[in-house]
Amino acid sequence: MNQDRRDRLRDAAVAVLAESGGRGLTHRAVDAAADVPTGTAKNYFPTRDALLRAVAERCLEQYRALAASLAGAGPGPADAEQLAALLAGLLRDVAGPGRPRVLAYLELQTEGTRRPWLAALLDPIAAGDFAAHAHLLRTAGLPAGPERARALTLALHGTIPHLLTGAPATLAAAGLDDLDRFARGLLAAVCAEEAR
Amino acid sequence: MNQDRRDRLRDAAVAVLAESGGRGLTHRAVDAAADVPTGTAKNYFPTRDALLRAVAERCLEQYRALAASLAGAGPGPADAEQLAALLAGLLRDVAGPGRPRVLAYLELQTEGTRRPWLAALLDPIAAGDFAAHAHLLRTAGLPAGPERARALTLALHGTIPHLLTGAPATLAAAGLDDLDRFARGLLAAVCAEEAR
Repeated sequence: MNQDRRDRLRDAAVAVLAESGGRGLTHRAVDAAADVPTGTAKNYFPTRDALLRAVAERCLEQYRALAASLAGAGPGPADAEQLAALLAGLLRDVAGPGRPRVLAYLELQTEGTRRPWLAALLDPIAAGDFAAHAHLLRTAGLPAGPERARALTLALHGTIPHLLTGAPATLAAAGLDDLDRFARGLLAAVCAEEAR
Repeated sequence: MNQDRRDRLRDAAVAVLAESGGRGLTHRAVDAAADVPTGTAKNYFPTRDALLRAVAERCLEQYRALAASLAGAGPGPADAEQLAALLAGLLRDVAGPGRPRVLAYLELQTEGTRRPWLAALLDPIAAGDFAAHAHLLRTAGLPAGPERARALTLALHGTIPHLLTGAPATLAAAGLDDLDRFARGLLAAVCAEEAR
């Protein structure tokens, strides 16, 4: 089997899942999105679960690449203001260019509630965020105990469906209609001793 | 049309969506779950979108009933310890008896990313949580400014997929393997001035 074609099919599967949801994720739709002859996706990923696994593995790779690029991007945020800017940038990515990737992840997460093997594949992604955010808090000189890192991480996870659906009353109530202000306010709330 | 039968079909649709996901939500599956003749669900809810709308309206009713029962349940939590117990109880419900309801909600939320009318129906549910939690913080005598209420609400929203998938590394990293301790820690993190 051809690795380039395999990668192309996996990226197509991510795009199909993001755009059409779990119901739309079929071999035929992936073939069409990848612009390959009908039957190709089934050749590489014989079952629907194999398609889901391919999407999950692609998400995990993207997550690791993102984490590595953040870790390699110099010394990291030096204070609360720089960290707020970094977090606002991540949220802006969810609502913007990263939307297909995050939509696919949300679909996988929902499918994972009924598929333990899929939940297990995604487990390192969500779990890794807690350590990553604790590290960012420390680097920024903010209190980084487990309770604060958990509150920050879970609050960021909690923003994702709201940013993706974009329901106006929820965005306003959450303060997500101004992402820079939101990120500063979130850090102020979870790191109150330093930030006030 | 018969209101009892309509309610029964709606409850069946919630159960089907929770158990089988968006792909499993068909008129035939709802008929079977409600134990009514084939064709009944289609009579009441002619399209798949009408089925989704019925589930969303049922979720909204349940949410309003829950909010009313909390508001009518006496003076509310009088201190951080009582509020932590209340929040731990809510999280225990998500992971336990409330699981089908919350799973259905998660499926609707995911479908809502592609259906603005559905996102609009769910909007008051998520938005209402922010005001409700601000009220609970105030009642408990804790700092209840918008930033803290937002951090608390989003962190609680962020727990939901993790509690539903139950992936062990994520639960451990989030501290969700001990819900009483988790709730106390979350309040301590978002209300640091009072709780430390």
